[in-house]
Amino acid sequence: MIIVMKNGCTKEQVDHVIAAVEEKGLGTNLSVGHESTVIGVLGDKTRLSVENLERMDGVDRCVPITHSYKLASREMVPEGRRVKVGDVEFGGEKLVMIAGPCAVESEAQIMQAAEGVKKAGAQILRGGAYKPRTSPYAFQGLEDEGYRLLRKAADAYGLLCVSEVVDHADLEVAGQYCDMIQVGARNMQNFRLLRAIGKTGIPVLLKNGIASTVEEWLDAAEYILSEGNPNVVLCERGIRTFETATRNTLDVSAVPVVKENSSLPVIVDPSHAAGKRSLVQPLALAGVAAGADGLIVEVHPDPQNAKSDAAQQLTLAEYEQFTKAVSAVAAAVGRTV
Amino acid sequence: MIIVMKNGCTKEQVDHVIAAVEEKGLGTNLSVGHESTVIGVLGDKTRLSVENLERMDGVDRCVPITHSYKLASREMVPEGRRVKVGDVEFGGEKLVMIAGPCAVESEAQIMQAAEGVKKAGAQILRGGAYKPRTSPYAFQGLEDEGYRLLRKAADAYGLLCVSEVVDHADLEVAGQYCDMIQVGARNMQNFRLLRAIGKTGIPVLLKNGIASTVEEWLDAAEYILSEGNPNVVLCERGIRTFETATRNTLDVSAVPVVKENSSLPVIVDPSHAAGKRSLVQPLALAGVAAGADGLIVEVHPDPQNAKSDAAQQLTLAEYEQFTKAVSAVAAAVGRTV
Amino acid sequence: MIIVMKNGCTKEQVDHVIAAVEEKGLGTNLSVGHESTVIGVLGDKTRLSVENLERMDGVDRCVPITHSYKLASREMVPEGRRVKVGDVEFGGEKLVMIAGPCAVESEAQIMQAAEGVKKAGAQILRGGAYKPRTSPYAFQGLEDEGYRLLRKAADAYGLLCVSEVVDHADLEVAGQYCDMIQVGARNMQNFRLLRAIGKTGIPVLLKNGIASTVEEWLDAAEYILSEGNPNVVLCERGIRTFETATRNTLDVSAVPVVKENSSLPVIVDPSHAAGKRSLVQPLALAGVAAGADGLIVEVHPDPQNAKSDAAQQLTLAEYEQFTKAVSAVAAAVGRTV
Amino acid sequence: MIIVMKNGCTKEQVDHVIAAVEEKGLGTNLSVGHESTVIGVLGDKTRLSVENLERMDGVDRCVPITHSYKLASREMVPEGRRVKVGDVEFGGEKLVMIAGPCAVESEAQIMQAAEGVKKAGAQILRGGAYKPRTSPYAFQGLEDEGYRLLRKAADAYGLLCVSEVVDHADLEVAGQYCDMIQVGARNMQNFRLLRAIGKTGIPVLLKNGIASTVEEWLDAAEYILSEGNPNVVLCERGIRTFETATRNTLDVSAVPVVKENSSLPVIVDPSHAAGKRSLVQPLALAGVAAGADGLIVEVHPDPQNAKSDAAQQLTLAEYEQFTKAVSAVAAAVGRTV
Repeated sequence: MIIVMKNGCTKEQVDHVIAAVEEKGLGTNLSVGHESTVIGVLGDKTRLSVENLERMDGVDRCVPITHSYKLASREMVPEGRRVKVGDVEFGGEKLVMIAGPCAVESEAQIMQAAEGVKKAGAQILRGGAYKPRTSPYAFQGLEDEGYRLLRKAADAYGLLCVSEVVDHADLEVAGQYCDMIQVGARNMQNFRLLRAIGKTGIPVLLKNGIASTVEEWLDAAEYILSEGNPNVVLCERGIRTFETATRNTLDVSAVPVVKENSSLPVIVDPSHAAGKRSLVQPLALAGVAAGADGLIVEVHPDPQNAKSDAAQQLTLAEYEQFTKAVSAVAAAVGRTV
Repeated sequence: MIIVMKNGCTKEQVDHVIAAVEEKGLGTNLSVGHESTVIGVLGDKTRLSVENLERMDGVDRCVPITHSYKLASREMVPEGRRVKVGDVEFGGEKLVMIAGPCAVESEAQIMQAAEGVKKAGAQILRGGAYKPRTSPYAFQGLEDEGYRLLRKAADAYGLLCVSEVVDHADLEVAGQYCDMIQVGARNMQNFRLLRAIGKTGIPVLLKNGIASTVEEWLDAAEYILSEGNPNVVLCERGIRTFETATRNTLDVSAVPVVKENSSLPVIVDPSHAAGKRSLVQPLALAGVAAGADGLIVEVHPDPQNAKSDAAQQLTLAEYEQFTKAVSAVAAAVGRTV
Repeated sequence: MIIVMKNGCTKEQVDHVIAAVEEKGLGTNLSVGHESTVIGVLGDKTRLSVENLERMDGVDRCVPITHSYKLASREMVPEGRRVKVGDVEFGGEKLVMIAGPCAVESEAQIMQAAEGVKKAGAQILRGGAYKPRTSPYAFQGLEDEGYRLLRKAADAYGLLCVSEVVDHADLEVAGQYCDMIQVGARNMQNFRLLRAIGKTGIPVLLKNGIASTVEEWLDAAEYILSEGNPNVVLCERGIRTFETATRNTLDVSAVPVVKENSSLPVIVDPSHAAGKRSLVQPLALAGVAAGADGLIVEVHPDPQNAKSDAAQQLTLAEYEQFTKAVSAVAAAVGRTV
Repeated sequence: MIIVMKNGCTKEQVDHVIAAVEEKGLGTNLSVGHESTVIGVLGDKTRLSVENLERMDGVDRCVPITHSYKLASREMVPEGRRVKVGDVEFGGEKLVMIAGPCAVESEAQIMQAAEGVKKAGAQILRGGAYKPRTSPYAFQGLEDEGYRLLRKAADAYGLLCVSEVVDHADLEVAGQYCDMIQVGARNMQNFRLLRAIGKTGIPVLLKNGIASTVEEWLDAAEYILSEGNPNVVLCERGIRTFETATRNTLDVSAVPVVKENSSLPVIVDPSHAAGKRSLVQPLALAGVAAGADGLIVEVHPDPQNAKSDAAQQLTLAEYEQFTKAVSAVAAAVGRTV
C-alpha cells in the first residue's frame, strides 16, 4: 500500500504516520518528491486499514497496490483452474454449453427442453426453481418441485443440471438435485450464501452483480474459495449502464480481464445481457471470440407462452442453429464445442 | 400497456395480437397512424406479460403505462404515510436523526457513542452487528452480541435503535433487540428477506441498491408492503456511477422523486454516499433541503481506531456541530430537528 | 406519440389536450382504461413537442413511438447501406481493416507504420494530426503537418488514409489530404462540425460519444445525412461505465443493435475501449464475431516511445499476428479480411 | 507518480525502469515489499508518460499521485478565487442568481422574461442563441439575432447576460453582446473552443460534461486558465447514470468536491439535471445547502409554448416563489441572495 501525504504536510505528521504503520510490525519506505510525499508500506497489508490511515492528519489518501483476493488470483494458479462438474470440465479446450428455460414451469416443458438442448449438443440443463423477480406480483418459480423436475429431465436425457439458489436455507435441497448451483446477479454479494456454498464442495456458477466491478466479483469468489470450495466458475451476464437499447450491457472485456487476473474459468450469459432474442447469438459469438470457456443460454420449447423472460428465450430450433454458429467461432479461436 | 407494432406489420399480425390480448379478458384500442400502429390494452395488465407479447410476429415492443407497485404508490395514500418507531415518527414535520458507529465494536464503544449522539439530539442509535464486507478477510461484525450491546446502549441513554439484518434467519434475534431493522443496499433485492420482514410488523429502513432505479426500489418496498407490513422507511444512500471522487454518488433527486411517486417516508444516508468525512455535512444538508424526512449518519467516539468505514465516520464533537447545521437548514424548509 | 394522462385527470383536461393536438393538424385516438387514460397522436409528430404537452394539466408524460432519425434508419435502406472510400467498401462481405499510430509523430514513424500495416493487410492508414487531450499539458499533435505526412505515407504504400477532424475550420485542409475523416467521441455532438461534414461528400467515420446512447449516435449520424452526405460509417469505441479494469467498456451489443435499427455500416475500435494492449485482440475478435464491418486499431512501430496512448498500441509484429486471428473469426461468421 | 511492478518481475526489469526514469532527469525511490515492488518517481512528472512506462517489461501499472491541473487547483489559490462579471461576483457570500428562458425566441419573449426575473431578484439573464439539439429536426435557436435580443433585454432591465457559445467562430460576436459566455456540457472537451476562450478575458460558465469526472472537468478549466483567462465559474448540471426517473442525475457531491480540490467558484443548474419542473426547486435548494455559489435556472414567461425544454422551465410566478425558498436556505448556510 502507498500512503500519499497532503501537499504541505508537516514532518511531524509524516513521522506520526510512519510510527503508526511500524507499530503494526510493518516496514515503511519514505519518498519525498518535489510535489508530493509518499510512504510505501512493506509487509502484510491486512494488518492495516486504509480508512484508518486516511483519518490521520496530513494523509491525503491511500492507494492499494495488491488485490484483496488471493486464492482467486492468477498468481495462485498461473496455468488456470479447471472445474469439473460430473464428466464435464470448465476451463479446458472444449467449451461447456448450458441451456434450458428461464424457469422450470412443468414436467412436460422441462422434458421437452431437455430433449431439445441435448440434441443440439448441450451438456448441462438449466432451469430456474426459485426466481428472483423485481415485482412481488410476478411468477416466482415452482421452488423445490422445480429442482426435482429439473433433475428428472436431466437424467432422462443424460444431461447434468444447474439451477439458482437464492438463499442458504435452500442449499441442501438444491444440492440433492443439482450438479452445479448458480448464484445470481442479485446475490453476488450475499455473503452468507457464498460462505455456505464455500463449506460444501459443490460446483458453483457465480454471476457478476449488475453493478459490480471485476475486482468485487473476484472478491465474492474469494468468499467461496476461502471456505474451501475451489469449484467456482464465473459467468458474465451484463452490467447496468445508461444504454437502454439492451436490458444490460454485456461487458465482453470482462472475459479477458478475468483471464489475466484470475485463475477461474469464465463463461458468458448472452440471454440476460441482451434481454432480446435477436441479440443472443451475436453476443454469444462475441463472448466465445473473446475467450469465454462456455455459454449459458435460455432456451424454451414454447417461448411465446413462457412464464418469464419470454422475449429473450430461443426456441429449440433456434438453439440448434445457434450451436452451429458457436462451433464455427469456437474453432476459429482454437476451441471446440 | 401500449403495444407498438413494427413498421410494415401486416393486418393479420395486428389481428393476431388483438386476439391474444382479448383472450385474456382484456380490452384493446387500435390506433393506426401514419408512421406507426399502436394497440392500447385496457384492463388489469397483470394478466399479460410484456415479454410474451414482444415475441409475437409484428410486435416491436410494449410500453408499460402504469407502475408495477401499487401499495407503495402515492395514489394509494396521497397525503403520505407516517411510520412510527416507538415514539418517533418518520414523515412528519420533525426530522428523524439516526446516528452511531458503522459497527458495534465493544460495549465501551457503543455506550460512548450512544451517550454522545443522544446529547447531540439523535433519537435512534445505529450500529452494525452483521457487516457485509466486500472481502472475506475484513472485519465481519460481532453478530448477535452486537445486537445485544446496541440494545443495552440504547436503553442506557433513552434511545431507540436500528441495525442491519443480512439474512432472514437472523430476523427473529434482530427483532428481539432492535426497534427498527435495516435492509442494506446489497440486500435490496433479497426477496426472501423482504418477504420475511413483510410478515412481521417491525419497522424497516430500506436502503436503495447501488444500481437500482427508484422504480425497482419501490418494487422492493412493495414486497414488504404486500406481505402486510406498512412500516417501510426508504433511505437513499448513493448510487454507483463513473465518478471516482466520491465512493458513490448521492442521488439527491431520488428524494423528491420518491415523494412524487410514493407515499413512503424517505431519509438520506450521507456517510455511505460520500465515503469521506468532509463531504458528510454538505450532503446531509442537501438531502434535508431536498425534502428528506431524516438522516442516518455514522458517528464514532474514536474514528481513528474504528474497525470499518473509519474514513467517513464523524467524531462525537463533529456530530454535535453537524446537528446544529442541520437544524438551520431544516428550519429553512419548514421542518424541525 | 402516446400521451399518458395522470391518474385521476378530468374529462376537461383530456379534451383540452386533444384540442391542442388537433389544432396542429394531427389526429388523436383516445383510450380510456381502468388504470390509465392514454391519447394516441396520429400524424407527423415533428409538429408537436413532447415537452410542451408534458406541461399541460393532467398530462403525466409522453412516450415517443418512432425514432427521431429517419435517413439513418434501417427502414430507409432495408438491405443496408454500403460506403465506398476509394476502392474499399464498408458494409460488404469483406471487413475493412484500418490501422496506424495514435498520432502522426514524424515522417519516419508514419512511413514505417504504413509499410507495416500494409504488409499485414490493412487497407486504410490511420494517424492523428489534431489530438484532443484531456490535459492542456499533453502532446496535441502535429496539426496540418500531420495530415500531410499521413497522406505521403499512405501514398507511398498504396493505402487510403483517415484522420480526425476536431473543428469545422480544419475540414477543408483535412479533406485535401484524407480519404475519410473521423469524428471522435468528444465531437459526436459537435453539431456545427457534423453539419459542415454533411455539406461535403467526404466519407466519415463517426465514433460514439462515451456517454451517448445508440439512439443519440444515430441522431448524430442523421445530422450528416440530412445535409446530403450519405457516406457515414459508425465506429463503436467503448462507453463510460463504473468498471475501472478497462479504460472504457466496449459495448459490443451496439453492433447488432445498430444493424437492427440503422442501415449504416459499423466497425469497432478495440484499442480505445480497452486502453491496454493485451485486451485489443480479444475485443477485436468479439466485435467481428458480433457482426462488425471492420476494425480500426492503433499500431505503432515503436509503442514504447509513442507520444500518446502508448499502452494500447500494438507493434507491427503484433498487428501481423492480430490480422491472422481476425481472419479466422471473420471466416467463421461468413466474412473475409 | 508510482510505478507498480508486476509480481515476479526480475531485478533487471526494475533496473531498466529506473534507468528509463533517471534518463529523463528524474529521481527514483525503490521500495521492495513482500508482495510488491514499487518505484516512486521524484520530480516533474510531465517529463514522463504513464503509458510509455506501462509498456515496459515487468511494469504492472503506474499510479498518478498529483493532479494534472495546476492553476485550477485549490493549492494555487487556497482562499478561493472570485470571478467578477460586471458588478456581480461569484464566490463571495452572496449567491449569484442567473435565470431566463432556455432559448431566446422573440423580442417580446425575452423582454418579458427579463422583466420577470429582474423583479424576482436575478442578477444575470440567460437565454440560448445557438442551441445544440440532439436531433437535426429540432429548433436550433435564433443564432446571432438571439445574442442581440438578449443584450437588449438585459439592458432594458438592468441585468447582465450570459449565453452559450458552441463554436470558437462565434466567440467574437458572442463577446460583443454577452457579459459572460457559457460552455455547455457537450462542449466541455471542445478544446479548440476552450483555448479560444482562454485567450480572451471574458468570464465563462463551464458546465460539466454528462460523463465527465470532476478531474476531467478541472482539466477542461485548466485549458482556459492556462491560456491566461482566470475568470472561470464551474456549473454542475447533472451526469448520466442508469436512473431514468430524472433526465440526468444532479451530482450534488460535485459541489463540495470542487470546493476541496479547486479554487474556482461553482454554481448549480437544477433545470437540466431534473428535466422536470417539479424537481427544480428541491434540487436548487440541495445545491445551495451543499455550498454552491449560485444557481442558473430556466424561466419562461409562457413555458407551455416554449420552443425547447418546456417541461423544465418555471413560470415567472414560480420563479418568484422559488427565489424566496432559495433565500431561506441560503441564510441557513450563511449566504445571502
